[in-house]
This record gives sequence, structure tokens and C-alpha cells, in this order.
Amino acid sequence: MGKKKTRGELVVLSGPSGVGKSTVIAELLSVRKDIYFSVSFTTRKPRMGEADGVNYNFVTREEFEGMIQRGELLEYAEYVGNYYGTSLKVIQDKLDAGIDVLLDIEVQGAAKVRSKCPQAVLIFIIPPSFEELSRRLHRRATDQEEVIQGRLAKAREEYGQIPQYDYMVVNDKVSEAAGEILAILTAESCRTRNRLHLIADVAGSSSISQ
Amino acid sequence: MGKKKTRGELVVLSGPSGVGKSTVIAELLSVRKDIYFSVSFTTRKPRMGEADGVNYNFVTREEFEGMIQRGELLEYAEYVGNYYGTSLKVIQDKLDAGIDVLLDIEVQGAAKVRSKCPQAVLIFIIPPSFEELSRRLHRRATDQEEVIQGRLAKAREEYGQIPQYDYMVVNDKVSEAAGEILAILTAESCRTRNRLHLIADVAGSSSISQ
Repeated sequence: MGKKKTRGELVVLSGPSGVGKSTVIAELLSVRKDIYFSVSFTTRKPRMGEADGVNYNFVTREEFEGMIQRGELLEYAEYVGNYYGTSLKVIQDKLDAGIDVLLDIEVQGAAKVRSKCPQAVLIFIIPPSFEELSRRLHRRATDQEEVIQGRLAKAREEYGQIPQYDYMVVNDKVSEAAGEILAILTAESCRTRNRLHLIADVAGSSSISQ
Repeated sequence: MGKKKTRGELVVLSGPSGVGKSTVIAELLSVRKDIYFSVSFTTRKPRMGEADGVNYNFVTREEFEGMIQRGELLEYAEYVGNYYGTSLKVIQDKLDAGIDVLLDIEVQGAAKVRSKCPQAVLIFIIPPSFEELSRRLHRRATDQEEVIQGRLAKAREEYGQIPQYDYMVVNDKVSEAAGEILAILTAESCRTRNRLHLIADVAGSSSISQ
């Protein structure tokens, strides 16, 4: 059909640690199986249940710094003492093939993506309230109190960067949050700049006849 | 809930005569009963099945020109020999009350709305092809061939104005077109500028603590 896109959409999801991003992303990908979820590289240690190549590509600090030096990263940032970064080449290839790409990155990385790809769609996921974020971090119980407090302080800082994001989604119920992100993706695919090819022939013949 | 909007969204739908706008709008309003559909004023004669105050407010040329002179219109335009216009006050009141307002207006009017309300959301509905538009106009069989040709020529002209629209929706199947517009409305309600109040307290305490 003529609706096929010529280029994929680059979608960036950010949100404070504990907001439930992974769950929302899993829900999203179960509906939109055509989206490529870019697995980030990190020097952070895997949490219980996390698998290499699935949640993250877990690498050593040395390996990560090698990637930086060879210019292989679209963006990278240090966050609570660990590196997080996104491979450039993989993403370019997918976008060129018309495939939508989803990135799960924090605010510093999102700002870098924005400056390199102005048409990227930036979505920030917030909890229903800050108290609820604290509850979720404590419920997770994988981190010590000190780490949790560090994450909460970081979250407060991140909130100051929200205005650079195009959209805000509240993760109260996972299905609703995923539904809003799905709507955003549909809306973005309807953007005039992404669909002008649908009227190229008519617009052409119109300008000739004038 | 904190999600309640402080101000309604102004949504403008345009599209060539015969594209099936009315059917799409009816489908849309059956799902989103909270939307206020602004009934335009026109000097055009009612078509079979059209009711005053429902499809349009049908007025005389004299009455319409009185409204122009008294500054009661947000926008108005002449289209295929008839006036079409939108009441300003009704719309303002709804938007102020946090109600989304839907306008069905042609491209000249849309441009005027855009210049007066830069945050208005402009959506252009196109047919799957120009041939299909011609088929639909002939199938409708309410107009003479001369009028149909006038509408097709007008449609070609309108296509040149599509780049001023934020979104393009293809009306192939009505349910899909309505679904895309619903997604656009959901996405627009997620815009960061429409949701900053959700983090006002945290952002405030954060800037104090820094």
C-alpha cells in the first residue's frame, strides 16, 4: 500500500528509575511487534532476572570506553556511576529500512539524540506521584536504601529536563500508559511530513495545471 | 484526577468535498462523546437529509454578512459560491471549560484559525486516490457534473495547502480514519505543554533544593 513509510520513526522513552518503564515497553512491544527495541549497552551489573542481550548488552568499563573511542555510539551517558549507551549503526540501518526504533535512555542521552536527530519523538514516563515512585523503588527491594535515595534525588533532577520532551505519559496503569504511547506512535505516523508522498502525484499535476 | 486538562484542544478537520468527512466525524463523535462539534454557519442550501443546527446552521447571505460586520466569526470563507463560518464566542467558552472542540472547515478557514490559535491541531483528510474521490462525488449524485468538476478542481487546489496541516489521515475505511484521528487526539493530550501541571509540585521543590 501507499501508506508504507519511507523511513522509520526514532522514539526515545525516558523516565525515572522505578517508574516501570520495562513493563510498559514489554506491553508496547507485545502489540507492535514490528518495532525494533534497541538494547542499550551498559557497564551496570545485571539485576536478578535480567539477561545479557535482552535487557541490556552488559559490557565492562574497558569495552564501553573502546566503543566511545571508536565513535560507535549514538549517545552515551554516565548514570549513578555506570555507563549507558546506544549503538549508532544498528539504529541507522533499521530506520533506513522503514522500521520504527524504540530507545530506552535517560535524559542526558535523550538530549544528545534530540540534537543529532531533531525529528526523534521524545516521551517521558512519570509516576502518578513522587510518593508512588518511592513506594515502587522500595517494593522492588533490589537496592539498598542509600541507592534508592540516590535514585529519587536523580529523579527530581530529571524532572527539570521534562520540557525538552514532546510527550509525557503517566504510568498509573500499564495498559493505559502503553495505550497512550501507541496512540503517540500512530499520530506521529500521520504527521504531514511523513505522508506527503501520498499526494505527490496530485500535487504535481496541480502545480502544472496552474 | 490530576489528568484533567486546564484547557480544551481546538481541532480542525479539513478535506475535499466528497472525501467522507461527515461520516468520519460521526464515527469520531460516537466514541468521544465529550467532544464539542462546532456547527458551522453557511449560506449554502441544505442537501437532502441535512438538518439546520445539526449539519450546519443555514442562514441567508444577509444574515451571514451581518455576523461578519459584528465580528462574531472566528473565521469565514467563501467556497464554491457560498459563505462558511465559525462562531467565535461558543468556541472560546468550550475551550475555557476544558472541552475539546472540533471544527469542520476548509483550507482558507483553517489558515485563519492557525494564525489566531497557533496551538490548534490541523488535520487534513484525503481519499485513497484522486480517482476514488471522483467516484465518491459521482456516487453521491446530489450535484450536477459541472458542480462535481468544480469540486474536483477545488480539491486539487486544496492539496497544495496540505503542508500547513499537522496531520494527514487517509479515509479508506471510515473506522480506520476515525481511529487515527482518535490517536491524534490522545497524543495531543499527552503533549508535554499540556501536562506540565502534573509535575509542577515536584519541579518546584526540586528548584528550591538546588
